[in-house]
Amino acid sequence: MPVLEWLDYAGVAVFAATGALAASRKQLDMIGFIFLAAVTGIGGGTVRDLVLGEAPVFWVRNPNYLLITAAVAICVYFTAHLFESRYRLLLWLDATGLAAYSVMGAAKGLAASGSPTVAIVTGMLTATLGGILRDVLSGEPSVLMRPEVYVTAALVGAGAFVAATFAGLPLVAASGIGVLAAFIVRGGALRFGWAFSPYRSRPGRRPEDIM
Amino acid sequence: MPVLEWLDYAGVAVFAATGALAASRKQLDMIGFIFLAAVTGIGGGTVRDLVLGEAPVFWVRNPNYLLITAAVAICVYFTAHLFESRYRLLLWLDATGLAAYSVMGAAKGLAASGSPTVAIVTGMLTATLGGILRDVLSGEPSVLMRPEVYVTAALVGAGAFVAATFAGLPLVAASGIGVLAAFIVRGGALRFGWAFSPYRSRPGRRPEDIM
Amino acid sequence: MPVLEWLDYAGVAVFAATGALAASRKQLDMIGFIFLAAVTGIGGGTVRDLVLGEAPVFWVRNPNYLLITAAVAICVYFTAHLFESRYRLLLWLDATGLAAYSVMGAAKGLAASGSPTVAIVTGMLTATLGGILRDVLSGEPSVLMRPEVYVTAALVGAGAFVAATFAGLPLVAASGIGVLAAFIVRGGALRFGWAFSPYRSRPGRRPEDIM
Repeated sequence: MPVLEWLDYAGVAVFAATGALAASRKQLDMIGFIFLAAVTGIGGGTVRDLVLGEAPVFWVRNPNYLLITAAVAICVYFTAHLFESRYRLLLWLDATGLAAYSVMGAAKGLAASGSPTVAIVTGMLTATLGGILRDVLSGEPSVLMRPEVYVTAALVGAGAFVAATFAGLPLVAASGIGVLAAFIVRGGALRFGWAFSPYRSRPGRRPEDIM
Repeated sequence: MPVLEWLDYAGVAVFAATGALAASRKQLDMIGFIFLAAVTGIGGGTVRDLVLGEAPVFWVRNPNYLLITAAVAICVYFTAHLFESRYRLLLWLDATGLAAYSVMGAAKGLAASGSPTVAIVTGMLTATLGGILRDVLSGEPSVLMRPEVYVTAALVGAGAFVAATFAGLPLVAASGIGVLAAFIVRGGALRFGWAFSPYRSRPGRRPEDIM
Repeated sequence: MPVLEWLDYAGVAVFAATGALAASRKQLDMIGFIFLAAVTGIGGGTVRDLVLGEAPVFWVRNPNYLLITAAVAICVYFTAHLFESRYRLLLWLDATGLAAYSVMGAAKGLAASGSPTVAIVTGMLTATLGGILRDVLSGEPSVLMRPEVYVTAALVGAGAFVAATFAGLPLVAASGIGVLAAFIVRGGALRFGWAFSPYRSRPGRRPEDIM
């Protein structure tokens, strides 16, 4: 299935670039770039394969994915200083990877389980886990905790793909719709600050003030 | 085995509620509630299934677990502001989930490996991992690092279940003993501050002061 | 294969000791020592087995590994206060575990996949993941983010082992070369501050200043 393979390579490469940009922000050495790029690029897909019972995971079966993440990391290492705002670039690349991986994860989940619920969840997991690992490892405030929509974009992408597939559309069309839907939602959040109306709750107090 | 299935549903639902409460404290949107509820609710069981070689994991085989976490998250979204102290509620729900999952994890580990050591460890892992993931993702100080007993309660629950099983008690009785033992230990820690006598050590210095 | 089994026991024991030392720095109770020792000691090997499709993982098949981590944790509990600098000891033990596990992970990856690329990556993953889990769980600044070489040492060890194996050396010799190479690189970093020349980049700004 060449469409999904392309989405997979795109997701891995783009997330790897965000990992390398995070490494640049932390001033790591080149091996640190490669490591953080690899974890970010293949992390989401690895967990997806594991929970679906598809082990050995994709990059053990096809080591090209590892070579891609290394190549991307080295490119970023030598060019990151050229960009005015690495963090802004990181967020947009992250949005692209999120869109590709939400569809890719949903497609794999649907093929493995036949359940639309499982497909939507594996789509969300695949799309968000690489970025979460990157943020936790590099000590950034997690992209998950930012006010604009993020997980929602992955949900929209995976949901649109699943709906289009159940509506009988061919794989290429369903994938295109899913990727576009996720990218529009996340891109709108980045560009226009799209967010749900604030939850009426108050923020949490610190544990020490309560117990 | 209906007893264990009930324990599993209870563990998932209660941990999902703690994840949603953490999302409320961080003022996330509704999808953020569902995501954090799902990760917390199914995280421990997912790792348990993976290390025991039971992939695809339980929620891929039975997507009802996912629907439960989503339903719980939506309920919490609309009611969290009614509670005076969400953090205190979170801790007591967490204690209930810990008790249910320490037995559930031990039972699955015992069935898969036959080793009491493995059973106790899978019980501890299943019971503690969801809460650890929740704390790491939401940037809370980890419940693991709090002074009162926490992992110990999971150990007591799993150990009591394994001992009762090897003593020949039927599954229902052994499960009840395990759940009760874990809940008493963790509840006592929350209510009366039960803790081991402080370790005679001094706290660690900061890395910068040493190297 | 007794050489690899010894390396595995050594890696587990030494990483378990670093986990227990981290628990001592955080003044956890004895069960907290055992838990952090277990997660650190078996974390890297667990992920290695999962991605290679070797589930149930090694410590489910052979619970002795769990007993080793518990024994090490108890020893450290009663002796940690005797050391002048637990953090320095932790770093040197971590270097030993890194060396043992980079070879062990590469050997398992090579046996399972036949690909040198995969072998080097599983070597790096196995060697670094336990320490990363320890640092994330105990809230330390991750060893990955320190300026001296760390992941590079794991890469050198795994790479040297793979190169020596493809050059036709017997397993014992290839393992010895790999372990030594990794330890020299990481030890040099600890003792003499070996690091790559600083990346020409500037540090990252805070997200609030950009968006």
